[in-house]
Amino acid sequence: MAVRAAVAGASGYAGGEVLRLLLGHPGVEIGALTGHSNAGQALGGLQPHLTPLAGRVLEPTEAEVLAGHDVVFLALPHGQSAAVAEQLGEDVLVIDMGADFRLADAADWERFYGSEHAGTWPYGLPELPGARGALTGARRIAVPGCYPTAVSLALFPAYAADIAEPEAVITAASGTSGAGKTPKAHLLGSEVMGSMSPYGVGGGHRHTPEMIQNLSAVAGERITVSFTPTLAPMARGILATCSAKARPGVTAADVRAAYEKAFADEPFVRLLPEGQWPATASVYGSNAAQIQVAYDESAHRIIAISAIDNLTKGTAGGAVQSMNIALGLDETTGLSTIGVAP
Amino acid sequence: MAVRAAVAGASGYAGGEVLRLLLGHPGVEIGALTGHSNAGQALGGLQPHLTPLAGRVLEPTEAEVLAGHDVVFLALPHGQSAAVAEQLGEDVLVIDMGADFRLADAADWERFYGSEHAGTWPYGLPELPGARGALTGARRIAVPGCYPTAVSLALFPAYAADIAEPEAVITAASGTSGAGKTPKAHLLGSEVMGSMSPYGVGGGHRHTPEMIQNLSAVAGERITVSFTPTLAPMARGILATCSAKARPGVTAADVRAAYEKAFADEPFVRLLPEGQWPATASVYGSNAAQIQVAYDESAHRIIAISAIDNLTKGTAGGAVQSMNIALGLDETTGLSTIGVAP
Amino acid sequence: MAVRAAVAGASGYAGGEVLRLLLGHPGVEIGALTGHSNAGQALGGLQPHLTPLAGRVLEPTEAEVLAGHDVVFLALPHGQSAAVAEQLGEDVLVIDMGADFRLADAADWERFYGSEHAGTWPYGLPELPGARGALTGARRIAVPGCYPTAVSLALFPAYAADIAEPEAVITAASGTSGAGKTPKAHLLGSEVMGSMSPYGVGGGHRHTPEMIQNLSAVAGERITVSFTPTLAPMARGILATCSAKARPGVTAADVRAAYEKAFADEPFVRLLPEGQWPATASVYGSNAAQIQVAYDESAHRIIAISAIDNLTKGTAGGAVQSMNIALGLDETTGLSTIGVAP
Amino acid sequence: MAVRAAVAGASGYAGGEVLRLLLGHPGVEIGALTGHSNAGQALGGLQPHLTPLAGRVLEPTEAEVLAGHDVVFLALPHGQSAAVAEQLGEDVLVIDMGADFRLADAADWERFYGSEHAGTWPYGLPELPGARGALTGARRIAVPGCYPTAVSLALFPAYAADIAEPEAVITAASGTSGAGKTPKAHLLGSEVMGSMSPYGVGGGHRHTPEMIQNLSAVAGERITVSFTPTLAPMARGILATCSAKARPGVTAADVRAAYEKAFADEPFVRLLPEGQWPATASVYGSNAAQIQVAYDESAHRIIAISAIDNLTKGTAGGAVQSMNIALGLDETTGLSTIGVAP
Repeated sequence: MAVRAAVAGASGYAGGEVLRLLLGHPGVEIGALTGHSNAGQALGGLQPHLTPLAGRVLEPTEAEVLAGHDVVFLALPHGQSAAVAEQLGEDVLVIDMGADFRLADAADWERFYGSEHAGTWPYGLPELPGARGALTGARRIAVPGCYPTAVSLALFPAYAADIAEPEAVITAASGTSGAGKTPKAHLLGSEVMGSMSPYGVGGGHRHTPEMIQNLSAVAGERITVSFTPTLAPMARGILATCSAKARPGVTAADVRAAYEKAFADEPFVRLLPEGQWPATASVYGSNAAQIQVAYDESAHRIIAISAIDNLTKGTAGGAVQSMNIALGLDETTGLSTIGVAP
Repeated sequence: MAVRAAVAGASGYAGGEVLRLLLGHPGVEIGALTGHSNAGQALGGLQPHLTPLAGRVLEPTEAEVLAGHDVVFLALPHGQSAAVAEQLGEDVLVIDMGADFRLADAADWERFYGSEHAGTWPYGLPELPGARGALTGARRIAVPGCYPTAVSLALFPAYAADIAEPEAVITAASGTSGAGKTPKAHLLGSEVMGSMSPYGVGGGHRHTPEMIQNLSAVAGERITVSFTPTLAPMARGILATCSAKARPGVTAADVRAAYEKAFADEPFVRLLPEGQWPATASVYGSNAAQIQVAYDESAHRIIAISAIDNLTKGTAGGAVQSMNIALGLDETTGLSTIGVAP
Repeated sequence: MAVRAAVAGASGYAGGEVLRLLLGHPGVEIGALTGHSNAGQALGGLQPHLTPLAGRVLEPTEAEVLAGHDVVFLALPHGQSAAVAEQLGEDVLVIDMGADFRLADAADWERFYGSEHAGTWPYGLPELPGARGALTGARRIAVPGCYPTAVSLALFPAYAADIAEPEAVITAASGTSGAGKTPKAHLLGSEVMGSMSPYGVGGGHRHTPEMIQNLSAVAGERITVSFTPTLAPMARGILATCSAKARPGVTAADVRAAYEKAFADEPFVRLLPEGQWPATASVYGSNAAQIQVAYDESAHRIIAISAIDNLTKGTAGGAVQSMNIALGLDETTGLSTIGVAP
Repeated sequence: MAVRAAVAGASGYAGGEVLRLLLGHPGVEIGALTGHSNAGQALGGLQPHLTPLAGRVLEPTEAEVLAGHDVVFLALPHGQSAAVAEQLGEDVLVIDMGADFRLADAADWERFYGSEHAGTWPYGLPELPGARGALTGARRIAVPGCYPTAVSLALFPAYAADIAEPEAVITAASGTSGAGKTPKAHLLGSEVMGSMSPYGVGGGHRHTPEMIQNLSAVAGERITVSFTPTLAPMARGILATCSAKARPGVTAADVRAAYEKAFADEPFVRLLPEGQWPATASVYGSNAAQIQVAYDESAHRIIAISAIDNLTKGTAGGAVQSMNIALGLDETTGLSTIGVAP
């Protein structure tokens, strides 16, 4: 019998993407869709690509609308999930695609988000060591940030195998959909087409503590992260270029072996054959991550690169994958490793 | 029991797209994949988005490789399909995504393609009046050109309802994938990004006679077509802006009624609500067509606009849709009306 | 001695472009720069490409700030130019890059813009027959709309030579900068990249009456215009595909001759050699227009295509060109026919 | 009296860009233009943006064609410059935009380029300490690679001030024009639009030894460089994200001071005000470099980011700037710091 799912924040990019995936999920029936300023409008005008839901009308984002579903996806602005979640029963699977329940450290939360820490939920990056256990049967899931998904997948094998020094340097390029649908001048097509630009440089990006949290947990020691995000002229995709010095004595073969081991049984992560490099186009619209790793002998560094779709594997696909695990479904149900290319 | 399908020309854009769709088709098992210069190479390096087929190796495009399949998709350069098809048995469903069997008029063929006319096969645009009947049980199918698909869907309702004069004026913008994967200087990213340019102006584009053929058949009289294709800075999508003078006395309500009638029961074509306009992003990667029509009272013209994905509904999706009809499957099997957006 | 120029609305796209051109104009000294909500801010943060002006601070858009200059460029929202202009002396050259003084017909103005008609100023498209005479010595200039510039250049030769029937059909693709810098959801990079979409279909676009006005004046009879604008995934550029039936008996040679005659002495318009087609990339950032024309014998239509940069020749470049004429400078001063490509 | 300049390789991107700049240079007269496979063709079809040169016909790339000019720009494939240069007199200023004379270390050259080392010429990055002296009066100039230009500008101030550890980590995103105009499948618009991808990862990119050479010379010690280039979906621009650990005790104020000192008098490099970040759009088509630097206290790293136009400051603009110095002209003649944006 199909699981009934509601989506709060159905008019935004994360909400639209989770609906796109749920429409193809054989075990889910789509229930209430809610919005804030768009409540009362038909989805057809807001998400014109979701043809089968064109006639659906958004309801207001209120607990009574969301109650009575088996699963509730929250695609709300940061800081709004806790108030909704606490009104939903413990038996409802609540999956937060916002940041509210990702960080374990209250001080980190307060420093980077400027509000009171709401708590920590099981973390929806199944590929991390130990994550699947915490997700199985869970009724609350915090979906990772898009950058932390890309970066953690690229670097955790190096730290799991203890082949990298604890100082990671990361530059990531993201498509503009990661910045959301709220109109802002610097996100206009006129501004972003033909341009690359950085932002949040120098340790200020909110996803930095989440990366540190993930990598430190795998490494068993504090990993410092120097993270520079850049905005790329494309709608979707993250390409994360991650590196760290290799531990003394590490060889190219050690590096390759660590990554082969980490992803040997992963359904959504593909370590590419040597010589082939990831491209965000290859994972467009899919839940796949493509990974490649190199050892730079001259600089004695490990360079690991991942490509994901920020809205799919980086947000809504990761949410559905985690939902599958929580509900005891096959983890890959309704999800694809096939990108839309070219 | 699954139908076994082979794809000849699996390394190009049309071949890759038909494979993307067949991977999601529950009634199809993917058999032999062939290439010409790429024979012997693994698909993973040629179509890196098709993760499940990464290990498959291309065989040479020869009849003996393709024989023994239930369906053979041909994604070959123009003029090469006939030689392959005639070596495949009458019981094999051969679906040609090239131009070879589209035009009924041998003189048209010879003028626009410069080679001997190969013949005419049932035409794979199911939405055209009478098309489904010809496709049912067919064992040879000619998939329409991408522009003729977009244009015919936009204009045939006007001619079916006899509300338009027989002179159509069409400008269409296409993504670059319509020009194929063979490297050419004018198709380089450096050249196409940030640029719009026309080509084949003045009646010279090969898809013009195909449009005339389709629209004339519906109208029951010769339709002239002035067609200007333009290259747009995007990988996928066709936006066709089509217009014709309205017959005397035609009203806006007549126009709307003609289009509502034409698409009332079509699973893949959506006439948008009044006031909403098609966008190629909305049908990205899907088999959907979005249509809107307006009546310009001042110019006394009907303006019909369609948006499709040139590789999906315009090529490989239309091919699979026609295959479904030919084989007696549900027409929508393995096909989606959900675009990947934003 | 240098002319002192002020720019009202210096933080928008039209204002920024006129400043970019004036910085390279040997006869102009840049005076006051004004803004509305951005008054008090340094230009360096608002127009980061205008390095030499980075330290300039925007003043409020008030007549007393603008007074005392030889030339005032107005880059204001529609409807705001008249109030400013009437406070500036008759000796000041006021160049309005908005729509307020373009339309001669008050009823057209009221229908398309919804406010009271402000009047008509000399029209800044020097290439139109008779335009230079009206601009010489003028102290008020209405800069044409970007689409009317592209369309009028493409079609006036056909009407001047009386080789075209009076019903023009036009589809134009524009870069997103034509829609301005005010943040709107449908103009976000996430929405426009990879997508083509129409708007203002069916006669509703505000530039339609301006096209009719221009072409009718040249033709000496009322020209009807069916105009469909589309939004293309690029920041700059307009490609206008314009067609009309040829008058009976018109030949391809007649068509070519009409266009060669029209542009023989034009410094900024280049009729391309036969067989070469315009591309917006070729005129990127320049004041050039590229034109090509074809005669489609089968459809008996003339197809004329123009490519311009909407912000340069389509707005600020046309403004500077007209300023040069008004002030008695060489028409090409400070303007270039060299695009930035690739 | 004007200097006469010839351009060898005028049909490619570097050749076209140097012509675009020379057309605006008041002290240069454009002489012979040569090509290889395009010899005999008019430039109008090859570089349609260079309107004033449309009628010029390419001559073959031979010394007798190039002789008799004051300046010869070489835009040839790597390895072909030496043979041409040695046939030109010592009095001719030869400016090589290829790689042939950049590297001082013959072993580096042979390892990265696979051919015999041709020698070393004065290096055309005037902003590097000591560079202007070597360029003054020079008759042979090696123009830097585009990535080394962006990276050296971003990092040399840190090494000049001895505030950074000798291990640099660099990720740079480049527009596709950096890969040239020769058609290759992975550079097709269909492949690059909407996609980010790395290449030459792990120390293999040919520009790596050039970066090491530049930074080591400034530092007075061997700098290791981990360099990852990525291909971005845009035609022009490089955004280089460069970082190194800060020396112990270095403060944010030290970092800022080092960069302010380095660029205080540079006409083409702008250290942005704190809080503003470079964007490649801001330097589009200009010879400007925008730089910003941050100190990440948590990771104890200096992050320096530069944005340039790869074809202008990164190639042809740097060439013209160096020519001006060599010839004793004002260094900024014919060059602009004004980008074409949006």
